[in-house]
Amino acid sequence: MIFMAEMDEHKRAVLVICDGLSDRGKLTPLSAAETPNMDYLARNGICGLMDAISPGVVPGSDTAHLAILGGDPYNDYPGRGPFEALGGGIELEEGDIAFRANFATVDRDWTILDRRARRSGSRELAEALGMEIDGVRFIVKHTTEHRCALVMRGRGLSSAISDVDPHGPGRVLESKPLDESEEARRTADLLNKFVKRSYEILSEYQTPANILLTRGAGMFRRVPSLKERYGFRSFCVAGSALYKGVAKFLGMDVIEVEGATGSVDTDLGAKADALLSRIEGYDLGFVHVKAADSRGHDGDWEGKKVFIERIDEELIGKLIGLDGYIILTADHSTPVSIRRHSSDPVPVLIHGEGVRVDRVERFDEVSCGEGGLGRIRGVDLMPIIADYIGYYRMYGV
Amino acid sequence: MIFMAEMDEHKRAVLVICDGLSDRGKLTPLSAAETPNMDYLARNGICGLMDAISPGVVPGSDTAHLAILGGDPYNDYPGRGPFEALGGGIELEEGDIAFRANFATVDRDWTILDRRARRSGSRELAEALGMEIDGVRFIVKHTTEHRCALVMRGRGLSSAISDVDPHGPGRVLESKPLDESEEARRTADLLNKFVKRSYEILSEYQTPANILLTRGAGMFRRVPSLKERYGFRSFCVAGSALYKGVAKFLGMDVIEVEGATGSVDTDLGAKADALLSRIEGYDLGFVHVKAADSRGHDGDWEGKKVFIERIDEELIGKLIGLDGYIILTADHSTPVSIRRHSSDPVPVLIHGEGVRVDRVERFDEVSCGEGGLGRIRGVDLMPIIADYIGYYRMYGV
Repeated sequence: MIFMAEMDEHKRAVLVICDGLSDRGKLTPLSAAETPNMDYLARNGICGLMDAISPGVVPGSDTAHLAILGGDPYNDYPGRGPFEALGGGIELEEGDIAFRANFATVDRDWTILDRRARRSGSRELAEALGMEIDGVRFIVKHTTEHRCALVMRGRGLSSAISDVDPHGPGRVLESKPLDESEEARRTADLLNKFVKRSYEILSEYQTPANILLTRGAGMFRRVPSLKERYGFRSFCVAGSALYKGVAKFLGMDVIEVEGATGSVDTDLGAKADALLSRIEGYDLGFVHVKAADSRGHDGDWEGKKVFIERIDEELIGKLIGLDGYIILTADHSTPVSIRRHSSDPVPVLIHGEGVRVDRVERFDEVSCGEGGLGRIRGVDLMPIIADYIGYYRMYGV
Repeated sequence: MIFMAEMDEHKRAVLVICDGLSDRGKLTPLSAAETPNMDYLARNGICGLMDAISPGVVPGSDTAHLAILGGDPYNDYPGRGPFEALGGGIELEEGDIAFRANFATVDRDWTILDRRARRSGSRELAEALGMEIDGVRFIVKHTTEHRCALVMRGRGLSSAISDVDPHGPGRVLESKPLDESEEARRTADLLNKFVKRSYEILSEYQTPANILLTRGAGMFRRVPSLKERYGFRSFCVAGSALYKGVAKFLGMDVIEVEGATGSVDTDLGAKADALLSRIEGYDLGFVHVKAADSRGHDGDWEGKKVFIERIDEELIGKLIGLDGYIILTADHSTPVSIRRHSSDPVPVLIHGEGVRVDRVERFDEVSCGEGGLGRIRGVDLMPIIADYIGYYRMYGV
């Protein structure tokens, strides 16, 4: 009779999400790329396909990350604003209304001259917009270039209001309530007053930024953290505010890494180093890599392929020695042929002790479809990881 | 460097549902059939398995089509009656109670002599049964042979009533309320009065049809159309009332095709021609083919195989040149060994621009199980099609 050694120690895991990694068609950038490290993990791991939300649903990056990182993409989703605000470093409170915001240039009629104010903006301009109107505080935080986060804090507010940003050419819009509630009416009204004040204040500075435009209103409500859901400690390495924000929303620590930009110039090696050096104090490290998605949006097949090869060499190559699990996947496909997110499922692989090594030889869209994980959903991934690293939850006895 | 052409135009799709196509066992009629056209699509497309409802649930043709055509098989399902009535050409109103009905022959004691009245029936007989009882209108529409649709229209009705049709030998049943409501009691009572009147009226005609039996009571409630759900225009080509009814229920246009009978003598070429000639004004054309299911119910392995070969040659062969997507699947399996629907998932394939071409070489139950779609559900199919043809919906940003 064999008694197995008791193994209830915890293992570590690194989750790599390559934004927009996968594609459509016969020869995809991922299938064409030379990716010896990813292929090594595929050969020695278990592979599958994953729908971040569900088959046929085209995920935004926000909802996809929320699901993959262990949240409920429908019930926990607060809209984009709170993620951007959290990622931008604002500590949110229950009931706060948060927005993505950006400095823009308008003429006297509030017709948009440049939605991005020549990509200008600063902490000074953002702080100049801090104010209180009718008992509601407005907090503006500059993040990158023309981008900010805006938070409205006070009683009786609603996120059911429309965007001020016209999302294109034309005039600045008036925010309107999206339901019949008094809260929505009041919030829209206060926001319109704030935008007017932003124009008056910013016009006194000699910069292209002369108004602040908002979109993606969302109310912050605290949801259970990953620690509360699974018991493990986790951290995030990401360049862009959105991904840091989703991570923070789920209670992950956010580690700032010099050179992690969220662009094609990002320092992938520095991200790998940050992961490996910080993982000691954690159970799960999540790293987000943005640029494959951007190349997909640009329709740049070759650029996408080349960047995937960089991920393979500079990031995955460094992680391979990790004592623990490596999970490699994407949040959604961004096919270069359509230059937008698509619902095509993403490849996913799990490498580490004890996984059922299937017959997949290569990390690409079609090969992973033949793998041992089958086709799973975003919400399935974190419980699977939790079980491997010993933080499983049992249902029943 | 490759830049792909921008593609936000809409494409067209043809959805072919072969009723009861798939089977159980090692050598199925589908795997044994010579199907060069289906196999061509499989080799150059993406394949998978699909559970119309969910694994292990044996679908009716009505619920399966409701799910596959984009409805919610649980929340939208009104029971069989409304589908038959819509498919039979009755314009239903909110709150109508609709039934499948059939002329039968009974003796003076209402013992069934022939449940199908020697397959006789006519428009004249159906119209003779139009009446009003206690403020409720009874509308009868003859469809084929002994078959009719019956609609009760009026206030305060309920579909929670039992069938009059005994579904076998014996006496005609009294309809009974299935819950405690006053509406159910009243509806059953009115229906029983109507059946009694049908016997009195029909007995005056010298035909085998001397009573009208009802089953499948359902209340009609409007649900969002495919156009409202996805934004695209769709039409249906089918021989049998049920499938036209489900299509109409979901807001599809129903195109009548000479020779589309829903039987083994159906003119498959005429259906293909109708699809191809009408697709111009639409985004999605759906064609239903019935007879493989009937052969399954008959336990006729050879007949099923031969009919599948006809589908391949006469229908699929004509569609292959289509500029757009071809989706080929079934609503459920009807194994010849058990002569009923089963929960075995159905094969599904999608052929068209940009699909991830997997390694499946043949369109059959086992080969498709190795395909790149994995195992999806009926409700997943329409969102997947919508994304391919450019009517995707994004969840999140």
